[in-house]
Amino acid sequence: MAKGLPKRSENYSEWYNEIVKRADLAENSAVRGCMVIKPYGFAIWEKMQRALDDMFKATGHQNAYFPLFVPKSFLEKEEEHAEGFAKECAVVTHYRLKANPDGKGLVVDPNAKLEEELIIRPTSEAVIWNTYRNWIQSWRDLPLLINQWCNIVRWEMRTRLFLRTAEFLWQEGHTAHATEQEAIEETERMLGVYATFAEDWIGLPVIKGLKSPNERFAGAIETYCIEGLMQDGKALQCGTSHFLGQNFARAFDVKFVNKDNEQEYAWATSWGVSTRLMGALIMAHSDDQGLVLPPKLAPIQVVIVPIYKSPEDLAAISAKVDPLVTELRAAGILVKYDDNDNQRSGWKFAEYELRGVPVRLGLGMRDLEAGTVEVARRDTLTKESRPLDGIVEHITSLLDEIQANIYQKALDFREANTFRVDTWNEFKEQIEKGGFILAHWDGTAETEEKIKNETKATIRCIPLGAPSEEGSDLLTGAPSARRVVFARAY
Amino acid sequence: MAKGLPKRSENYSEWYNEIVKRADLAENSAVRGCMVIKPYGFAIWEKMQRALDDMFKATGHQNAYFPLFVPKSFLEKEEEHAEGFAKECAVVTHYRLKANPDGKGLVVDPNAKLEEELIIRPTSEAVIWNTYRNWIQSWRDLPLLINQWCNIVRWEMRTRLFLRTAEFLWQEGHTAHATEQEAIEETERMLGVYATFAEDWIGLPVIKGLKSPNERFAGAIETYCIEGLMQDGKALQCGTSHFLGQNFARAFDVKFVNKDNEQEYAWATSWGVSTRLMGALIMAHSDDQGLVLPPKLAPIQVVIVPIYKSPEDLAAISAKVDPLVTELRAAGILVKYDDNDNQRSGWKFAEYELRGVPVRLGLGMRDLEAGTVEVARRDTLTKESRPLDGIVEHITSLLDEIQANIYQKALDFREANTFRVDTWNEFKEQIEKGGFILAHWDGTAETEEKIKNETKATIRCIPLGAPSEEGSDLLTGAPSARRVVFARAY
Repeated sequence: MAKGLPKRSENYSEWYNEIVKRADLAENSAVRGCMVIKPYGFAIWEKMQRALDDMFKATGHQNAYFPLFVPKSFLEKEEEHAEGFAKECAVVTHYRLKANPDGKGLVVDPNAKLEEELIIRPTSEAVIWNTYRNWIQSWRDLPLLINQWCNIVRWEMRTRLFLRTAEFLWQEGHTAHATEQEAIEETERMLGVYATFAEDWIGLPVIKGLKSPNERFAGAIETYCIEGLMQDGKALQCGTSHFLGQNFARAFDVKFVNKDNEQEYAWATSWGVSTRLMGALIMAHSDDQGLVLPPKLAPIQVVIVPIYKSPEDLAAISAKVDPLVTELRAAGILVKYDDNDNQRSGWKFAEYELRGVPVRLGLGMRDLEAGTVEVARRDTLTKESRPLDGIVEHITSLLDEIQANIYQKALDFREANTFRVDTWNEFKEQIEKGGFILAHWDGTAETEEKIKNETKATIRCIPLGAPSEEGSDLLTGAPSARRVVFARAY
Repeated sequence: MAKGLPKRSENYSEWYNEIVKRADLAENSAVRGCMVIKPYGFAIWEKMQRALDDMFKATGHQNAYFPLFVPKSFLEKEEEHAEGFAKECAVVTHYRLKANPDGKGLVVDPNAKLEEELIIRPTSEAVIWNTYRNWIQSWRDLPLLINQWCNIVRWEMRTRLFLRTAEFLWQEGHTAHATEQEAIEETERMLGVYATFAEDWIGLPVIKGLKSPNERFAGAIETYCIEGLMQDGKALQCGTSHFLGQNFARAFDVKFVNKDNEQEYAWATSWGVSTRLMGALIMAHSDDQGLVLPPKLAPIQVVIVPIYKSPEDLAAISAKVDPLVTELRAAGILVKYDDNDNQRSGWKFAEYELRGVPVRLGLGMRDLEAGTVEVARRDTLTKESRPLDGIVEHITSLLDEIQANIYQKALDFREANTFRVDTWNEFKEQIEKGGFILAHWDGTAETEEKIKNETKATIRCIPLGAPSEEGSDLLTGAPSARRVVFARAY
């Protein structure tokens, strides 16, 4: 067992930090609020990227790249957008350093002051819509379906690895459409892609919904989101998809000639997911032994550990394992044979448990004789002895089973932790215990604010497709047409 | 033909700019010196990335991600490095904007001044070696073989799409080793990977060599490079690999316990290629009709254009083409069937020529009757009628043939434009005509500088494995042991 890993039940927050650190996923850098994503963590992110990128391309999107810098005047153009991001901007003011005239080192060269300050992109609507002005003239140029993978900077004061960092990696889709309807369809389509990715790849069930006006993206008409429930009963927003209406087209004067030969502003969407999904992945499934990875996102799906005393034993085991590795690879399975002689097998067992490798195969001398192998599942922490014969087929289906089981466990957890609450007292009590709370809300920003101030709970979303149900607001008693999802959140 | 594309022979520079623009590869952004990489250009870059990334992984490297920001004090730690990059740094001095108290818009909030300025990374040695201090304790932690794909910023005054921009995309490998010998081997191994990529994928023959001390990376002991020859006779540095000795380990105090149980500084390498390779790709092969893409890097390898008069004809052609598309895809070929009715086939022919699609298939009614198809090669601009029967096999081998032919053409061009020159007058004459010049150099920085000032020619490299040959310096007559490569360069 990983020595001293804190228990979830005792200190969830420390447990999270320690898993990130000990499983070698990421660490804080010397630059305030910025993280270093370590190779093992980055390998998981790469698998996420690849899967999402394939899904974006399958829905007709192309990648492109736009500048890191947003001129201040661009950010100012869409007023709400500017207000939303002004307070957390990294600002470039100079373009040169020079030798310190008063001593050692370098100083900013005052003669190299920029005429206009450049903001490090906190998101790229401004830069991209300024570019789209030249790309869009006619309805024939639409829809324009573009995605960008990049780094962005939001100067957050309190940061947390993967969940909230000053710099993070993400993708941002920016599309332009000829009609409002098409843009809304795109917004919903990409929300669907995110939900599918969360469920089928991360193994995390999510609720699709709309944000309340208070929680909308700065500059959006409507913000859609997917919300997941973590094991401590707090919600995590895992992705957002925005219907931007004609706000950015108006701000950047992006008009096209429609089929009736009239000038019209283009309709916009934007949507993004980030390295925050790494936080979701860690928190959704891991246990007191460490990380639990869904097989589809595991950089190593199967690890093989030899159990031996002498070099001769190791040689005999390796002779059996080498062709097995070849077979597993041929079946498309990511396998590692750890025959490193510097560590004992017990240490290796704990290490790969900590790193969340879905399946561990242990092979000792007795197994060689019996033609068996010990198969250990990371998700259930169960072991069984299996015949080596047919093991590749067994593992192939076992990986599918683990992927499905991880999802089912997270779904069961969410169902057990989703509560319909009808009174204010019950609400205050339940929110301390965590979980999603389905409750009536009168639809006003004032009530939302009051509830937040008193309980730290926010409206996570107004679920899509929720049945209409007459009711009255928890706090004010005012009428409400359907329940919304409340929770404390990351 | 692409209307009005300038001819290479008349205005090479404008020809280059126009190809980048008309083939939809990239454009200048509203932010000074920064480019927008458009979807078609980005698709080529993605293919380059994928191929290189596979090669890095096959040589044991892992990807990771380090912060965008370099604290000024980090940059200062390695003196030569600091000096080399100080003059072209984008500097972040503040972390917040606020509403302008004197009027409209936003201003930098003077209360949000950073205690220490942050530099946007011009390269990441400083940040990475500061991190490695905590990662490296023992010889068991070595070698550490890490690569990062990211954006970097160097505030260049004169910029050119892909060739020299203030922000660009690249990869930077940063490795740490226990011995000098291993680090040198790594430096050379990665130079070899770059050369293989340039030759096998871009189809560009390159000379591998060492930079003269003048041209070394700031902070390196030795800089290796690959140099390609463009069609205007100018050289383009396509990639560099640096042996950094213990300079960065010393600056950032990265020590490890070696096998003899002694503390020692780690040995370092770094190596990078960038979106500049897009410039190499364009300039190496393209012609007066537009881009010429090597099949291995073409986002569309085969385009099929129907030639028809009536909708019935189009339907009949499509009925033949649809299964062909399926077959080509099944053979792993990237194919596009352009049945867009808004453009005539002649327009399409010119458009795909401009975009460098390696093979074009034309299919008309007469072809349907005869069971033939017109196959046009982009590299030779030749056409022939072929039986539809067996066309997939033909195209598969044709793509290989085109890839090989493009390389051979570039190699022939380089051989025809490489000159052995022994006198100063001959040198001055030849340098005006372009090409690689193999000449003797006395090895001093002074002579190198003089030659540069008088002719704008630089030493591109001291070729690896060049035969030793007694001679005397062109300009000074001082003795020289072997020829080096001179050229004017991008």
